[in-house]
Parts: sequence; C-alpha cells; structure tokens
Amino acid sequence: MTDSYEPTGRTIPTRSRHRASYDRAAVHSILDEAYVCHLGFVRDGAPVVLPTLYGRIGDRLYVHGSTGSRPLRMAGAGGATASAGEEAPGLPVCLTVTHVDGLVLARSAFHHSINYRSVVVHGTAHQVTDPEELRTALDALVDHVVPGRSYDSRPANAKELAATAVLRLDLDEVSAKVRTGGPNDEPEDATLPHWSGVIPVRKSYGTPIPADDHDPAIALPDYLSVL
Amino acid sequence: MTDSYEPTGRTIPTRSRHRASYDRAAVHSILDEAYVCHLGFVRDGAPVVLPTLYGRIGDRLYVHGSTGSRPLRMAGAGGATASAGEEAPGLPVCLTVTHVDGLVLARSAFHHSINYRSVVVHGTAHQVTDPEELRTALDALVDHVVPGRSYDSRPANAKELAATAVLRLDLDEVSAKVRTGGPNDEPEDATLPHWSGVIPVRKSYGTPIPADDHDPAIALPDYLSVL
Repeated sequence: MTDSYEPTGRTIPTRSRHRASYDRAAVHSILDEAYVCHLGFVRDGAPVVLPTLYGRIGDRLYVHGSTGSRPLRMAGAGGATASAGEEAPGLPVCLTVTHVDGLVLARSAFHHSINYRSVVVHGTAHQVTDPEELRTALDALVDHVVPGRSYDSRPANAKELAATAVLRLDLDEVSAKVRTGGPNDEPEDATLPHWSGVIPVRKSYGTPIPADDHDPAIALPDYLSVL
Repeated sequence: MTDSYEPTGRTIPTRSRHRASYDRAAVHSILDEAYVCHLGFVRDGAPVVLPTLYGRIGDRLYVHGSTGSRPLRMAGAGGATASAGEEAPGLPVCLTVTHVDGLVLARSAFHHSINYRSVVVHGTAHQVTDPEELRTALDALVDHVVPGRSYDSRPANAKELAATAVLRLDLDEVSAKVRTGGPNDEPEDATLPHWSGVIPVRKSYGTPIPADDHDPAIALPDYLSVL
C-alpha cells in the first residue's frame, strides 16, 4: 500500500489545485475527526445529499442507515436494477466530509474565505450482507462517534441487525482539500482601514447530560471525560 | 407567503418522519447558523458533493464559486445544454446544511445516534447574470460568514465581479430534520451497567488572529468581539 491515493480526473480539482492532497494519512485524519458525512447519490436523474453517520476500517468506509432508507434500498442486493442471482450493481455515490476551522476576513469582500479541511470520496457503495462484516461495521460506526464505546454497550441482537443496513465504500478515488492561514489580500489593499485576519472556529464539548433514567451509581467513563 | 414550505415527494422522508419540519422560520434559522453547505449535482451521470459557501436573502440562496468551477459552468448561460439565445436550463442541485448538536450514547449499540439539525433543499440552480443581483448576492455571502462585514470591507471591483460566479437557488422544495433529546433505549436495557446520555457538541470561536501585515492601530470591530 502506498502512502497516497492515485489522483483521477474526478479528484483533481478545477480550482485551487495547490490545496488538494492525496496523502493517505491526511485523508484518514480528516475522516476520523468528523461524525457526519454528506452522502450524495442520484435518484430519478436528480442529485440527493443526505447527512449520515459513518465509520472507517482501514481503506473502507461504512455508512449507516435503516433498511428502509432510499440509498440503502437502491444499493442493496434486492435493488431494482439487480436480477435474481446477480450481484447488485451498487449505488454510485460521492461522500464528502468537511471541517470548518476558521473565518478568513480579508480587507476586500472578494478575498473573504473559510479555512477548512475536506475529503471527497467517489465510488460505488454496496450493501454489507456478510453477517460478520456487518457486526464489525456496526462496531466501527459506534467507535467512530466515541472511540472505545462499542466495548461499553450492548451489541446489536438479531432483530436489530436485521433492521440495520450498512453500505460499504472503498477509499480509492479520494482526495483532501485544505485551506489554512490568513487572508490573501491584494497588495494595494494593505492600507485599507479594515480589520483583517482569521477567527478560529472550533468544535467543543459541553457537560455530559445523563439520560433521564440514568443510574447515578454509574460514573462517567474515562473515554467520555477526556472529550 | 405562508409560514411553511409545501411538502413534496422528495421532501417527505422515508425515515423518522416525526423529525421532519417545513416551518419557514426553522429552516431559515438552521441555514443562517452554518457557513458551509454541501452542494450536490450530477456530472456524467454520477453524483458530486462539494462544500461551498452560501448566503441567504429571504427565500433565495446564493452559492459561491469561481467562474471556472464545474457546477457553475454547468449552470451558466454558456452551459453545454443551452443553445444560443435560450435561457440556460440551470443545474439540478441538492443543497444540504447540517449542524451536529450532540453525541447520543445509548446502552445498546443500536440506539446510538447524533442530535442534529439539517436542511435539505432540492431545486434548479441558475447563474446570477444581473450585475445588481450579483453585487447584492456577494454582500449576502460575506454577511453570512460575519453579519455586517460587507459594510467593513472593500466592495468587489469590476475585475473581481467578472471572476466571481454565483448560483441562485430558490427555497421552495425544502425541509428541515431535527433530532433532540436523550437516547431511546429499549425498556429492557434500562438496568444495563453502561453510562447513557448526551455529550453536547458546540461550535466555539478562538481568539481572533490578525493578518501578518495587520495595522495594530485598527481595533477588533464590535461585530467580531461578540462572536
């Protein structure tokens, strides 16, 4: 396995190419820091973009849904375009994850921007049908929200597994894009009387709120107190 | 104008219908709190989802891009499917905005979730060609990042206006979806020895970082100190 993904026509941006990266570790790091991806697919010729939970195991993403959800039905073994006995063709998707890191205020309206880190994955999603892979994928989904949590919760039972569908998407055609640093004002604007710089934007956690029926004898676990 | 958007086949969810809302004020509030949307469109039959800045004026969204970017070229007056003299057909898009408000930790892996607020807009985007609308849209884009900022920056000049393309998308076929509250554990799981509840997730701002060539005589404006 190389340290980088291979650029393709779809992952070489038309804009700001210097911000694109194919570095595997950079891509994984951006993916692992978010909880929600935006999953795009085509329905009746029109685009649909839905926020969805996901997990990662190596170079494979798992996207969560119920068996009744539209993308999962479209990607599933019983999909409308699959004939009996044939492997389902899968669902072409684009999965995007974005972190906003800062508001970039330039002296000119034109150079206002956002510092961000994003990953865009192109590929074909397939429904996970192997029971062992499904269990592993569900653990990855739970652990993606809070690392270690799958060991401290009741595993899915047969009924729950049957009600859960998971899509598999290989990380293959994928790129990251990152903007950092201050505003790129025009030199002739340097003396304009406007404040310019960056307002950092961060994700932070509030005080954990126990469930209404929570047993006060159960202390907050270490993996939550470090958030 | 009514207080709600009209539900359509595309905006009535197949899952968790009780979480859907068509309330105009709720939709606007979710849109106004985010900086970045995820814009989905179809290219060569496959979905593409890109993070993009946007602004809102009433029931109209404006999405930012350079004139060289793919969706803007596809939606523009010179789009591949437009004949000379005809109005461009526009670009079918799905624009989605999501806030993550909390990590929902249930006693069972199955009931883990996220508290979130999302808005999904379906429609056809058109490139803004009227110069006056373009100026207004650019102000809205800047003010969406920091309210009031367009008054404290140099407006775009003719060259910058020519290099900026903006897509217009009417809020018409649109819905919000919101999850709040604690975990929905099964009654029989209530006595399991796992911490359950919600970890609030918030957006916060760091100390503003002035640009390298910033004039220290220019104080941080009030509209930034309140962030």
